[in-house]
Amino acid sequence: MAISTPPGRGGIGIVRLSGPRSRDIVDALIVTRAPLEHARSRFAEIPDPESQRMLDEAVVTWFAGPNSYTGEDLVEIAAHGSPVILDLLVRLSLKGGARLARPGEFTERAFLAGRIDLTQAEAVRDLIEAQTLYQARIAAEQMGGALSRRVQPAKQKLVELIALLEAGIDFAEDDVEVTPEEETVTRLEAIYVDLQNLAKSFEHGRIVHDGLRLAIVGRPNVGKSSLFNQLLERERAIVTAAPGTTRDLVTERVSLGGIPLELVDTAGLREATDEAEAIGIRKSRETLTEADLVLVVLDASAPLRQDERELIASLAGRRILVAQNKWDLASSHAEHEGSGSPLIGEFGSEMAIVSVRTSALTGDGIQELRDALLEMVRNPGGESEAGMLTSIRHHEAITTALSALTAAKQAARQRIPHEMLLLDIYSALRQLDSLTGETTADDILNHIFSSFCIGK
Amino acid sequence: MAISTPPGRGGIGIVRLSGPRSRDIVDALIVTRAPLEHARSRFAEIPDPESQRMLDEAVVTWFAGPNSYTGEDLVEIAAHGSPVILDLLVRLSLKGGARLARPGEFTERAFLAGRIDLTQAEAVRDLIEAQTLYQARIAAEQMGGALSRRVQPAKQKLVELIALLEAGIDFAEDDVEVTPEEETVTRLEAIYVDLQNLAKSFEHGRIVHDGLRLAIVGRPNVGKSSLFNQLLERERAIVTAAPGTTRDLVTERVSLGGIPLELVDTAGLREATDEAEAIGIRKSRETLTEADLVLVVLDASAPLRQDERELIASLAGRRILVAQNKWDLASSHAEHEGSGSPLIGEFGSEMAIVSVRTSALTGDGIQELRDALLEMVRNPGGESEAGMLTSIRHHEAITTALSALTAAKQAARQRIPHEMLLLDIYSALRQLDSLTGETTADDILNHIFSSFCIGK
Repeated sequence: MAISTPPGRGGIGIVRLSGPRSRDIVDALIVTRAPLEHARSRFAEIPDPESQRMLDEAVVTWFAGPNSYTGEDLVEIAAHGSPVILDLLVRLSLKGGARLARPGEFTERAFLAGRIDLTQAEAVRDLIEAQTLYQARIAAEQMGGALSRRVQPAKQKLVELIALLEAGIDFAEDDVEVTPEEETVTRLEAIYVDLQNLAKSFEHGRIVHDGLRLAIVGRPNVGKSSLFNQLLERERAIVTAAPGTTRDLVTERVSLGGIPLELVDTAGLREATDEAEAIGIRKSRETLTEADLVLVVLDASAPLRQDERELIASLAGRRILVAQNKWDLASSHAEHEGSGSPLIGEFGSEMAIVSVRTSALTGDGIQELRDALLEMVRNPGGESEAGMLTSIRHHEAITTALSALTAAKQAARQRIPHEMLLLDIYSALRQLDSLTGETTADDILNHIFSSFCIGK
Repeated sequence: MAISTPPGRGGIGIVRLSGPRSRDIVDALIVTRAPLEHARSRFAEIPDPESQRMLDEAVVTWFAGPNSYTGEDLVEIAAHGSPVILDLLVRLSLKGGARLARPGEFTERAFLAGRIDLTQAEAVRDLIEAQTLYQARIAAEQMGGALSRRVQPAKQKLVELIALLEAGIDFAEDDVEVTPEEETVTRLEAIYVDLQNLAKSFEHGRIVHDGLRLAIVGRPNVGKSSLFNQLLERERAIVTAAPGTTRDLVTERVSLGGIPLELVDTAGLREATDEAEAIGIRKSRETLTEADLVLVVLDASAPLRQDERELIASLAGRRILVAQNKWDLASSHAEHEGSGSPLIGEFGSEMAIVSVRTSALTGDGIQELRDALLEMVRNPGGESEAGMLTSIRHHEAITTALSALTAAKQAARQRIPHEMLLLDIYSALRQLDSLTGETTADDILNHIFSSFCIGK
């Protein structure tokens, strides 16, 4: 039993009970005009156990197992969204013999009842946690079984191969034809390629699931906070004409092409003038190190400085984007005219740097900046997102399976006895089974479901 | 249409639509195996309008008017408690022709449909907003019509009196007996007494509804923060041996006998040593002025100081309680032994001061302190709480009705013509009608329902 609606006040709040005794427990708490029936909403009064006077009105619905979310008998009491009323219902249910559900326990029961597999259960959590519609769509596909379906062919092929090899062993003396090593290697290779493509989808899937962190860095007074506000479309960071205005990291989330992007505005990099600024600059450097993407802001109306050159050079190999800000001022200088930027040109040979001309003041170039950022977070594979890997757990299972398959391929090539080869192939199969929950250890299950919210 | 569950993430989130087109709008959003039926929970898939792939699974329930909360056709879509999914459902409903419900609009419709009266509608809001079970119980009684029932007899008597007086006027020339003035005054007096008792119940009702603010004041280092933490039963306020530790007001809510009590720990009163302390002390004095209850903390191990004497004297007429703290240290001094406190005795003649001996260090006397506080917030009338006035609006209506009845009594005694007398009596009746919503102006209705949460 748990409160299944979000915490806080609202029109409706739901207490949900699951298990064979749930209906009896609820029957003792409520007064209805007619007995509960499967999937029928009944108006109910909740009497105050002390005075027997009505304490709240509710709509109570009983779902008879197995036709319920958990696969068990399940009752939902939809009362007013009043925390004290819902707390009382929880206490009365406890008195009636219920116990508090662990986080995710309702979904865990649906999994244990075989209604959904483990990837689908995890997708329920991801759907609830989704911050953008794009994330929700990916979670919904997984909830519908897209990942399980995508793993299924590789699993099927592994099982077939195992059958062939096992037959080779068991009936070796009965003259059953032993699969030639080449055949084994070819089959293993096909499975390997399937799973490798799946593993690759994690590159984008991880981004979809976790989002990205974009650090906005540069010298003081180049307009970092103004660009931050422009990207955010509101005046979040304090902007003044004085250099060194930003000290604390200012962070906000935006959605970029459906991917949550955490923008971090940082203190301008220079020799600090006081302790607060020094701390701010240290934080800027830490943020720079940890960010997934870096937006380096330059002042296009001034020549590129040595420390800026060094900053950009130090980011070689990182995903960076350069904003030549204050372009409205720069464009009046003849020496800056032209299609490319001479300031950035010098890095052209060693680093492929994308640079965008912006004016945080006029708003010019902001859309181009957004497009350039979007380009950086787009699905690089461009392939179908159905069944994309988004979870570290899934990615680990697949990469472990790939290692086992590599070992198996080597073993086959070296004509190592099938018994040994089979150990590796079984190990790969077990990893795929752990994805869907067929062979997942209890402690891993506990770990997964404890990351759910209460009441789901 | 509105999201009716609290904002945030949870197992279940509900979008509710009410009105004649609600079912058509929902039918276009969902896929079910069978058509919706009144009060039957249907499993539904919500397809992504872009890809037509499943985006979420939901349980959808249609309530055919007038057998619904609003009295109109009403549909509830119980999806996963995922903000992006619920937002999408809202946007799709808007596209389908629904509009966003104003706060409280579902309850307003229930009122306009005549399903509940205005006091019952207001009680729904109070139930959701309740911070303690006691508050919820009082709100639930009002939701069940307790206040309306309590006003009903007075209203009935007013209507009877009006009928008699109107008859006296209309048929005066037909020799119908005109009610003697004494009879009129007697009847008015009975109604007056009923309503006066009701008005008195607001003294406690207001406390039940709004809660109380308790300021904890005293000199530095007498143990205010320690007592605050003891009353709160956790280490909320920072405690050190140095005087002047607390600067900012530290506030927390506790429930005292079911009444929400806001405890405010304040900076110790003395000559400030720096600016932060000076600001803190100014805030202490403001808090002292505005609090409903004041807990003056003294150091029982030291003699009463002149400024403490002045502080207590300045609180004459206020509801105050004195804690003689550090009693564990004081009790070792012979001069402090005895049943009463000599420190407080001096105020005995002018002020009735309740004093409690406490030791925030050992916990001694904390229960006694709590009991003394409880005594201060208890229902002074001790009468039934059914139909107690808890709202300023109701109290104003009743006091305005009482004024009109006073005027009517005077008019009757002065044998002013019945036409004039009736104006006052009608005015009193209108006030009682405004309580239940029979004659409440639209702007007042708007004001009432706008204080609801969205989705109720």
